[in-house]
Amino acid sequence: MQSNNIEKLRQQSPLIHNITNVVVANYVANGLLSLGCSPIMSNAIEEMDELPAICKALVINIGTLTSEQVKSMRKAGISANKNNIPVVLDPVGVGATTFRQETVKTLLSEIKFDLIRGNAGEIAHLAQVAWNAKGVDAGSGEANLSQIAIDVALKYNCIVSISGETDYISDGKKVAKIDNGTVLFPKITGSGCLLSAVCGAFLTLEGNKFELIVSACTSYAVAGQIVKENLDNNQTGQFYIALLDSLAKLDDKTVEQYAKISFD
Amino acid sequence: MQSNNIEKLRQQSPLIHNITNVVVANYVANGLLSLGCSPIMSNAIEEMDELPAICKALVINIGTLTSEQVKSMRKAGISANKNNIPVVLDPVGVGATTFRQETVKTLLSEIKFDLIRGNAGEIAHLAQVAWNAKGVDAGSGEANLSQIAIDVALKYNCIVSISGETDYISDGKKVAKIDNGTVLFPKITGSGCLLSAVCGAFLTLEGNKFELIVSACTSYAVAGQIVKENLDNNQTGQFYIALLDSLAKLDDKTVEQYAKISFD
Amino acid sequence: MQSNNIEKLRQQSPLIHNITNVVVANYVANGLLSLGCSPIMSNAIEEMDELPAICKALVINIGTLTSEQVKSMRKAGISANKNNIPVVLDPVGVGATTFRQETVKTLLSEIKFDLIRGNAGEIAHLAQVAWNAKGVDAGSGEANLSQIAIDVALKYNCIVSISGETDYISDGKKVAKIDNGTVLFPKITGSGCLLSAVCGAFLTLEGNKFELIVSACTSYAVAGQIVKENLDNNQTGQFYIALLDSLAKLDDKTVEQYAKISFD
Repeated sequence: MQSNNIEKLRQQSPLIHNITNVVVANYVANGLLSLGCSPIMSNAIEEMDELPAICKALVINIGTLTSEQVKSMRKAGISANKNNIPVVLDPVGVGATTFRQETVKTLLSEIKFDLIRGNAGEIAHLAQVAWNAKGVDAGSGEANLSQIAIDVALKYNCIVSISGETDYISDGKKVAKIDNGTVLFPKITGSGCLLSAVCGAFLTLEGNKFELIVSACTSYAVAGQIVKENLDNNQTGQFYIALLDSLAKLDDKTVEQYAKISFD
Repeated sequence: MQSNNIEKLRQQSPLIHNITNVVVANYVANGLLSLGCSPIMSNAIEEMDELPAICKALVINIGTLTSEQVKSMRKAGISANKNNIPVVLDPVGVGATTFRQETVKTLLSEIKFDLIRGNAGEIAHLAQVAWNAKGVDAGSGEANLSQIAIDVALKYNCIVSISGETDYISDGKKVAKIDNGTVLFPKITGSGCLLSAVCGAFLTLEGNKFELIVSACTSYAVAGQIVKENLDNNQTGQFYIALLDSLAKLDDKTVEQYAKISFD
Repeated sequence: MQSNNIEKLRQQSPLIHNITNVVVANYVANGLLSLGCSPIMSNAIEEMDELPAICKALVINIGTLTSEQVKSMRKAGISANKNNIPVVLDPVGVGATTFRQETVKTLLSEIKFDLIRGNAGEIAHLAQVAWNAKGVDAGSGEANLSQIAIDVALKYNCIVSISGETDYISDGKKVAKIDNGTVLFPKITGSGCLLSAVCGAFLTLEGNKFELIVSACTSYAVAGQIVKENLDNNQTGQFYIALLDSLAKLDDKTVEQYAKISFD
């Protein structure tokens, strides 16, 4: 993989609209700022027509859903589709409750998403494959994640990214596997949520969407991997903060140097 | 005190449902992850029956209360009682407004709590003892905190924990005092809120509830004390982050070594 | 500039009521604690009469507005005026959407503010001067910020502070310019929001309001400048945390030593 996506992202500094959960709103905003983007976080139904019209991407995250927020997600998603900006869905903990399941079903029926990004438990749920998910955490299972990524990509006609120690990214035909994971990502809250927002930012760049998501997920994983080189497995707090520095410092050359991408 | 509670907590990795305030949701999630637990933060009324059925404990925190959230707290608390999982109340700033007072009164009348944890100002308010509380901060007063802990524990038939430089924990009969406080805890937001969640996590372990809460409060205080050894009194930001690392690193042997527990 | 404002602030430790956005609630609370103040964050309409009566200042921030929150802002602002405590408005991203514009219009018509603090894009919008704002970020423009500060101060009969590389503060007559900016402030979320809260805290001190705001903005800028001395431009995460330490350590003598204030 060779690209100048990070450089372009910092130059273009896209405005990204995030409808996200209260747990990670701060971290996602700081992470996007570290990559040179401009985040705007808003759930207000009154703003859901206008914001997608001035933003370059919309990222919808169901981590702390409320019924009011669902209305806003639907309105913003439809506006984003109308304005032809990319839309990302992060189905946080979708398997955990009926409310999350029904919300995701509604969103997927009304909005055309460019990307669905989640952990194994979340994407397995969308594929209706048995998986032992645990609340909003990935949990564990035995299913074939490559096949799940393909199936969900075909089902919803979009890119699918499954994050974990290895990332699986599919457009329904190809599958890219990224082997730059670190053990510290699942030990901090919002690491997946921020990646969803980073993917939204990358989708504002010109290029093939599958390749842009491979680039986004690789860049993010490498940023974490570099931090981990100087930390032990218990330094969760330091990792949380140093990841922002790493994103702010990251360049395309470094990503290329670290990237471990293979294709199924 | 001798236990392997922290080890067991990391092994069992319980899913903890938090209905908490927007100020600390992120920090509480990161703190629970650092201890090896799985946090889920949710206020949605639609999820309040289901989540307590899949979670191992419920922690209710009134720090940024709304009327919608009160409905969710009531529903979740009743579901938690029905599902026999431990329930913790953190009555943040209860004395500050009528809304907080009435909400806590309602919650205490409808839900059986296993633990009420707060600062001196909050618990003194529940004991109807004069105390000069200050918003959500402890403030100052002259009352006998041991007696207050006993009285509130008897009144609500639960464990009570008063956090401060010295922690007072009572089951209505005994009082444990923990002298592992550090001056930096009150200088960061959410240090008490995270402790409430940690107590909820410890209550998922088998054992006597009073002893589990003594263990939880001691472990948390020791985690802070260890961080403070390398910081001066002004390093509030560093303390905030390093506390997560310290929780991630903490083991039972270290807690035992530092613990200063006495009984009244 | 010579003052003992920071020392007085730490002594008096005022309780500050913040109606703020979910992105920065945690950071604002930690920042106020670092300066020795007691923050209370609340949006609940049920508390909006009582809290301004027990608090020393009210800070209203529209960063993640909802219609419910607007009602609370109006009620709290009116209560704050009645209770004669200072009120600060942070019109986050006011130009971005009709909802924000109309909300700010309503707030400014119903509430007497002591200070409006924002970035160039936000204050230029209030002055109806052309400016290329970008969501909640300052964006870029060519207008005369000194004149804009004067105009908005006259229009709303209050102090106006425009934050940026140079801060412009006006009471409608004088303009103070503070040249202690660092490039890292716009790279973290909530740096402006926290400054608004800090200004609210300074307004609880006795003295001329214009001078208090000059003192607040200088102190905050100097706290950032000191951190930046040991960081490179990419250390956004470290800056975020070290700013809290710097605020906790800051004293009046240091501020005086670093301050670069000029008057137009």
